[in-house]
Amino acid sequence: MNELFFWYAAIGTAVFAVSGALLALRKGMDIVGVSFIAAVTGVGGGTVRDILLGDTPVRWVTRPADIAICIACAVLVSAFNKRLLGRRMDWLLYADAAGLALFAVLGAAKAESYGAHALTAILFGAMSATFGGIIRDIVCGERPILFAKELYITPALVGGAVYILLPEALGFDIRAITGLFCALFLRLLAIRLQWSLPFPRYRAPLDE
Amino acid sequence: MNELFFWYAAIGTAVFAVSGALLALRKGMDIVGVSFIAAVTGVGGGTVRDILLGDTPVRWVTRPADIAICIACAVLVSAFNKRLLGRRMDWLLYADAAGLALFAVLGAAKAESYGAHALTAILFGAMSATFGGIIRDIVCGERPILFAKELYITPALVGGAVYILLPEALGFDIRAITGLFCALFLRLLAIRLQWSLPFPRYRAPLDE
Amino acid sequence: MNELFFWYAAIGTAVFAVSGALLALRKGMDIVGVSFIAAVTGVGGGTVRDILLGDTPVRWVTRPADIAICIACAVLVSAFNKRLLGRRMDWLLYADAAGLALFAVLGAAKAESYGAHALTAILFGAMSATFGGIIRDIVCGERPILFAKELYITPALVGGAVYILLPEALGFDIRAITGLFCALFLRLLAIRLQWSLPFPRYRAPLDE
Repeated sequence: MNELFFWYAAIGTAVFAVSGALLALRKGMDIVGVSFIAAVTGVGGGTVRDILLGDTPVRWVTRPADIAICIACAVLVSAFNKRLLGRRMDWLLYADAAGLALFAVLGAAKAESYGAHALTAILFGAMSATFGGIIRDIVCGERPILFAKELYITPALVGGAVYILLPEALGFDIRAITGLFCALFLRLLAIRLQWSLPFPRYRAPLDE
Repeated sequence: MNELFFWYAAIGTAVFAVSGALLALRKGMDIVGVSFIAAVTGVGGGTVRDILLGDTPVRWVTRPADIAICIACAVLVSAFNKRLLGRRMDWLLYADAAGLALFAVLGAAKAESYGAHALTAILFGAMSATFGGIIRDIVCGERPILFAKELYITPALVGGAVYILLPEALGFDIRAITGLFCALFLRLLAIRLQWSLPFPRYRAPLDE
Repeated sequence: MNELFFWYAAIGTAVFAVSGALLALRKGMDIVGVSFIAAVTGVGGGTVRDILLGDTPVRWVTRPADIAICIACAVLVSAFNKRLLGRRMDWLLYADAAGLALFAVLGAAKAESYGAHALTAILFGAMSATFGGIIRDIVCGERPILFAKELYITPALVGGAVYILLPEALGFDIRAITGLFCALFLRLLAIRLQWSLPFPRYRAPLDE
């Protein structure tokens, strides 16, 4: 993975950590709780991915840069949330879309390098991108983002699928960047246009 | 594991996936969310079992048949739930009992083959059979099946215990089928007769 | 790890199991559910720690003493809770503090022995000490202890930090006992004096 992706991954982790810290603050946690939720959100998706792939000890055991980023975000958000957040938060939504797109591609790429089936690799991309947020919501007692109206998991699936379906001969960079932009584009459109998937109509069974 | 058990396991996975898809539909998720919950419910128990045993990458990384079954169930349930479910749902309850009995025996057998202590192997059977449902309920914000009135975990424990306590000389098939039928029989009786275990009376401590 | 710590760890597991059994009883679970929650609470923290470190199969697969302790606690609490608990429960709070302090030190020590970075090792201590309780609360539908007013995670972090920051030349026993007493002392003070960390003031973003 090249230098550019390293920095982008750090930014993605930071954005997810900020989203976790904001939720924890809103729930009234103290600074340790806020840091905990920030770290779980920032590294949760990649950690679940690595456990399922058997890539343990997970990376942050020996290289805690990601964890340090999450804690730094938690402290900064706690200190400056009054000044920082007393304004429109759209930038956070857009940054989250960037993190989502990146982790979807990185997750699919990592699963592929472990010999995963194409279907599984695409799912691993979506998992890496969304499990941090799902764990964050469960621990904080929120409705998980799975219930979100606008497309959220779908752009991650699309990004992973583009990466996986592009021929390997194109090389990691081209496949990854194409997948990333497809996911990002779809997520941004979904935010702008409030796109959603059809909700199947549910009719309760008679004996319920 | 012989051919028969392979097919039975596929049916068990499908039944669990259907139960997950139905709950997700009732909660108002879109088709991606429904598929996600179906997959988590269908393979969740076996995945937790394999992570605890260290059998990673988990099986569906390279052989995604189980995941494909879950997604297919989610799509079918979403498409046909009006026609399919506008009637008595008892068949789902009975099918779930079959899945429960099978995974209890398979989980205990797998743990035994990893050198687990007999007590742990029985617990692994119950975990394999129930964790998918527990994760489903937590992600969907439902009271976990742990709170169910009728015996649910207990038949799984009994099935695993029968398998483990029968002498190895009988061979896998006889031990597995006997354990499976004991678990199935007990679960069906519990459904019919509304059997439940004693609920210990709780008296709150004075300082609460 | 010497004999003394083995016994202390068994006591810590038992105390956590009792806290899980009590919550499950209050929630109206039957004896199997109570045992399940007791076991998850008692061994959950160490299990998550071992999965992240890649130390699988987890210890209780082959050596189920900890699980047996948890089940015994669940049965005893269920049988005697009327007699046992119809009085002040402070002793449980203090015993929980002892378990917290011990697992914080043991978790940090185990992570260190796996080559973890100092920051990660301290976090592993806190995880080992608190994840059992967090899983217990999520499965039972309670607000996780993360929301607790009094210091809970912080003493665990302090205990792990003292252990990690003391020079290795002092030997395991001295480092562990010092870390343990620091964590225990801080937790007991926090209970007595209702110490809490500052709660960052949250100001909702304008567009919320």
